[in-house]
Amino acid sequence: MNGVTSGNADRLLAMAITAAGGPEVLQPRLEPVPTCGPQQVLIEVAAAGVNRHDVNQRRRGPDGRHSDIPGLEVAGRIVAVGEHVSHRKPGDAVCALIDGGGYASYAVADEALTLPVPHGMTMIEASALPEALFTTWHNFFNVARLQASERVLIHGGTSGVGSVAIQLLSAFGHEVYATCGTDEKCAMARSFGARAAFNYRTEDFARRTLEVTGQRGVDVILDMAGVVHAKANIVALARRGRIVHLSPGGSSDMQFPLRALMQKEGVVTGSLLRPLPLAEKAVIAAALADKVWPRLGTQIRPVISCTLPLGQAAQAHQRLEEGDVAGKIVLLAAVLTDSEAPV
Amino acid sequence: MNGVTSGNADRLLAMAITAAGGPEVLQPRLEPVPTCGPQQVLIEVAAAGVNRHDVNQRRRGPDGRHSDIPGLEVAGRIVAVGEHVSHRKPGDAVCALIDGGGYASYAVADEALTLPVPHGMTMIEASALPEALFTTWHNFFNVARLQASERVLIHGGTSGVGSVAIQLLSAFGHEVYATCGTDEKCAMARSFGARAAFNYRTEDFARRTLEVTGQRGVDVILDMAGVVHAKANIVALARRGRIVHLSPGGSSDMQFPLRALMQKEGVVTGSLLRPLPLAEKAVIAAALADKVWPRLGTQIRPVISCTLPLGQAAQAHQRLEEGDVAGKIVLLAAVLTDSEAPV
Repeated sequence: MNGVTSGNADRLLAMAITAAGGPEVLQPRLEPVPTCGPQQVLIEVAAAGVNRHDVNQRRRGPDGRHSDIPGLEVAGRIVAVGEHVSHRKPGDAVCALIDGGGYASYAVADEALTLPVPHGMTMIEASALPEALFTTWHNFFNVARLQASERVLIHGGTSGVGSVAIQLLSAFGHEVYATCGTDEKCAMARSFGARAAFNYRTEDFARRTLEVTGQRGVDVILDMAGVVHAKANIVALARRGRIVHLSPGGSSDMQFPLRALMQKEGVVTGSLLRPLPLAEKAVIAAALADKVWPRLGTQIRPVISCTLPLGQAAQAHQRLEEGDVAGKIVLLAAVLTDSEAPV
Repeated sequence: MNGVTSGNADRLLAMAITAAGGPEVLQPRLEPVPTCGPQQVLIEVAAAGVNRHDVNQRRRGPDGRHSDIPGLEVAGRIVAVGEHVSHRKPGDAVCALIDGGGYASYAVADEALTLPVPHGMTMIEASALPEALFTTWHNFFNVARLQASERVLIHGGTSGVGSVAIQLLSAFGHEVYATCGTDEKCAMARSFGARAAFNYRTEDFARRTLEVTGQRGVDVILDMAGVVHAKANIVALARRGRIVHLSPGGSSDMQFPLRALMQKEGVVTGSLLRPLPLAEKAVIAAALADKVWPRLGTQIRPVISCTLPLGQAAQAHQRLEEGDVAGKIVLLAAVLTDSEAPV
């Protein structure tokens, strides 16, 4: 806690989006420490995960609907709780999925979306879990309705989501395949548990996916590149398979040969995590606590690309946009020093 | 039976696709009467339904994979049965979903895909049932997994499939909406049970669908126009709704704004009925016999646009291609005279 409490720290340091633009529009700002709603907790942020979503929000600029402070996941210690909070108390080490505001020394989280920092994990690692785990769970089990023994293909196998999804679904017994943009990343994806990983720049991943699955194809494909792989995805898809999009990608329009999809009774779908109602996010959190938390640290471990001080959020965005990131970039809130020690 | 049996009629009259092209490539041909497989029946065809699929097959021309004789549904009397046929016998009046060969005086059908001509229906009406009912059932209940109390929108509300789907889903208690290309067809669609029908040439059907559903949208959309309504369909769709395509339409590529679909966790999917494995078609037939057959003639009645002699199959295709058809065009096999009398 370093002597900082919600009582005497009435201003927080945050990195805010000051305009639509490049990484340079992220600027430090002093803000009042937010107050908890009745079912919320105030977290003294030790570490905050950086996501592609933050970059897209920064490019669009302040919109009046969301906090200008990006950041959808944090880890830290609880310093205050709302009056109806029942399961968390000040001092608890938690990570949380939050609705923006993570690039800051304090952040508010709904109690229902907090999860304990897994035993033996650092705050840095814990801050890299929520977005990837909520996304993986929601898209595979709710949106795609993944069934036992179904095969999956995960694009971006070393991305924040991809690296965690490969480990989680492998741990659950699924045959997992992945694509990556370099041979080195393919090797990493295999080390996470992928049975095979294909370099989409040098290989025909759809043909290779059919080869390694005895021409059957995969039942669910997780895609974060929008239209780029749309046609090849259908080739790689099994009958009645589902292609789930996490990001519209660079082009806003999806395009693919309809008859090929119909022939397989394939499904093109997707989701956005942030606008999901709190009640649905809470159900996901409960499922994660039950099914995934016991496996963390042993079967599933987040992959940290690098850490940077909160004040260098712009550099974090720049690295993510340059694309050569494997795993998650994490920002360290300046006021804390215990973020690198396991809890 | 008019004295015709499989014993003495060793040649059948058929209308065959002689080349890729317009309606004129449909030419009469004498063929050997086909023989039944062990689980098949031979039907003396009284009437054969004409489908858009037949037109598309004719345009593509003979392909070596399918019979050159189009026609996916017939009604008539059974004249011979294979050795393992157990539930049908010669003399039975049946309609059947078949794998081509319907534009002929005799056609072979898998026993599992035959259904009795409903009491009080003519052979003409019965021949208009299989394709529409198998298609409706498969797409709403298997592909789209329609749930009780969900709302649907059916494009082409007076088409062969549309007219039957509106009646069937209304009978099952769903709120059904439809689109049609003229105000007259909209009135017909309402007479089939649609709560509202929108003229897509003069109205913004997506906006109207939202209006009549309290801005909630519809849970399942049945579409046979390919990309034409793709963007508006997403607007009209409820959260977690499914858009099911029956035809790739004129353009082979589907195109829509991906983020809009993701925002609703919407699904774009579709199916092709003809390539479905026999075992799956048999399951649909069993469901139809159980759930739909008791309602035929009272709650659900096929809509016949017109009948033409088998020899005028070319005119039937021409009419269908001109697009001003409401309901099904039926071809009458020349050798029979009892097709217009109720069974």
